[in-house]
Amino acid sequence: MAPAPQARPIVVLVRPQLGENIGKTARAMYNFGLTDLVLVAPRDGWPNPAAGPAAAGADVVLDRARVVDNLDEAVGDCSRVFATTVRDRGMVMPVVTPLEAAAQAHAEIDAGGRVALVFGPERSGLSNEDLALADTILTVPVNPAFGSLNLAQAVVLVAYEWFQHRAPAPAVADHRAGQGAPKQALADLHAQLVADLDARGYFRSEGRYERQARSLRTLLENARLTDQEVQTLRGVFKTLTWAPRDPGDA
Amino acid sequence: MAPAPQARPIVVLVRPQLGENIGKTARAMYNFGLTDLVLVAPRDGWPNPAAGPAAAGADVVLDRARVVDNLDEAVGDCSRVFATTVRDRGMVMPVVTPLEAAAQAHAEIDAGGRVALVFGPERSGLSNEDLALADTILTVPVNPAFGSLNLAQAVVLVAYEWFQHRAPAPAVADHRAGQGAPKQALADLHAQLVADLDARGYFRSEGRYERQARSLRTLLENARLTDQEVQTLRGVFKTLTWAPRDPGDA
Repeated sequence: MAPAPQARPIVVLVRPQLGENIGKTARAMYNFGLTDLVLVAPRDGWPNPAAGPAAAGADVVLDRARVVDNLDEAVGDCSRVFATTVRDRGMVMPVVTPLEAAAQAHAEIDAGGRVALVFGPERSGLSNEDLALADTILTVPVNPAFGSLNLAQAVVLVAYEWFQHRAPAPAVADHRAGQGAPKQALADLHAQLVADLDARGYFRSEGRYERQARSLRTLLENARLTDQEVQTLRGVFKTLTWAPRDPGDA
Repeated sequence: MAPAPQARPIVVLVRPQLGENIGKTARAMYNFGLTDLVLVAPRDGWPNPAAGPAAAGADVVLDRARVVDNLDEAVGDCSRVFATTVRDRGMVMPVVTPLEAAAQAHAEIDAGGRVALVFGPERSGLSNEDLALADTILTVPVNPAFGSLNLAQAVVLVAYEWFQHRAPAPAVADHRAGQGAPKQALADLHAQLVADLDARGYFRSEGRYERQARSLRTLLENARLTDQEVQTLRGVFKTLTWAPRDPGDA
């Protein structure tokens, strides 16, 4: 059986450092009706004794929290992934506000898709490798002279917009909402492509490998491919790897 | 001479208990362009050594903070006073969300008025005596099963709505660059649509106008329309505004 449609976005904390901030995140989430928390490689392991007190009663969120090793695994079944950043990171990707993200997340979920809201570690934020797994950048507009939102505050604002969003009657529908390929399908496509390229010497040196592989992932994410298109591309890439047919066979 | 019009609301903390929360309030305010903080009878006096570190660089707000003995004095020169409460206090007073408060505060200040956003002590919240000095209750809509916003989070949300009410619509970086309609074409389409809706009473109040008009713009942006699609929509919208044809003319 297919999994039941997800009614709400999941919140993903990537390499969170302080248990207190995990608790505050749970509190912020639950205030605005979000219950699904995923922790990617929390620095101090899990469970963390500092999380409970900071959750101020949002224990249900902590109890349900899922722990995974990497972001790929966290967002594997999601069709839309919003990555929160504080400043422009120069990624070639749509950039939206919490307000716009809420509208898009509602549309995606209403159409049967699954959505992840991803937040980075307290000090460093998300790495470029993390960002390459997202399809949209989420940035909170702040005072240009003073941008200093902490992790829990960012979660509060994003969750608040999700909760208070009232879907307007769409005059123009996003026909792709809910049809986006699961991230795991994209990850598999990307892995196969990189492996095939690597086997043919595409990545001349170790240094270029990482950057070029990431660029390809970004390219695939930006294309907003449907599941069907991913399957098509797998076929295309696979076919290209075959030896040309001998004209004599024709 | 009359005082110069106030460009932004003041934030009033009534009997705040912890210096840390005063610092967090300053940080939250300054992220969203608010600089005028008034402290009513802070429990531990002022200055408070715990405030600075929690302000995370928003020292300008702390340095300018004014300390007064009572709320009357804090809001004496204000023409609108919003009092933040967590739950319904049974006061016979309008109750607004942060979104509505932001719209009303902008309108008030644009008209030359002065606005205060008032927050109560950490544990108890504002007293009924405090509330009687306000003209409007401000409540953040939260999960009915779990309402647990702390002081700094409430300030963040209220300040955020104030700031983003006026934040310009951010450019959407689009990987379909080159195929999308020129922004001027979208702007013209949007302006015509808003004008047509406005002429038919779609925007019930001044406060909703800006927000809903922006939502429509977001919707149009998200649709990733081509130039041709924009022209098509202009025709569709225009046709809808025509009176139905008299069957006798057919």
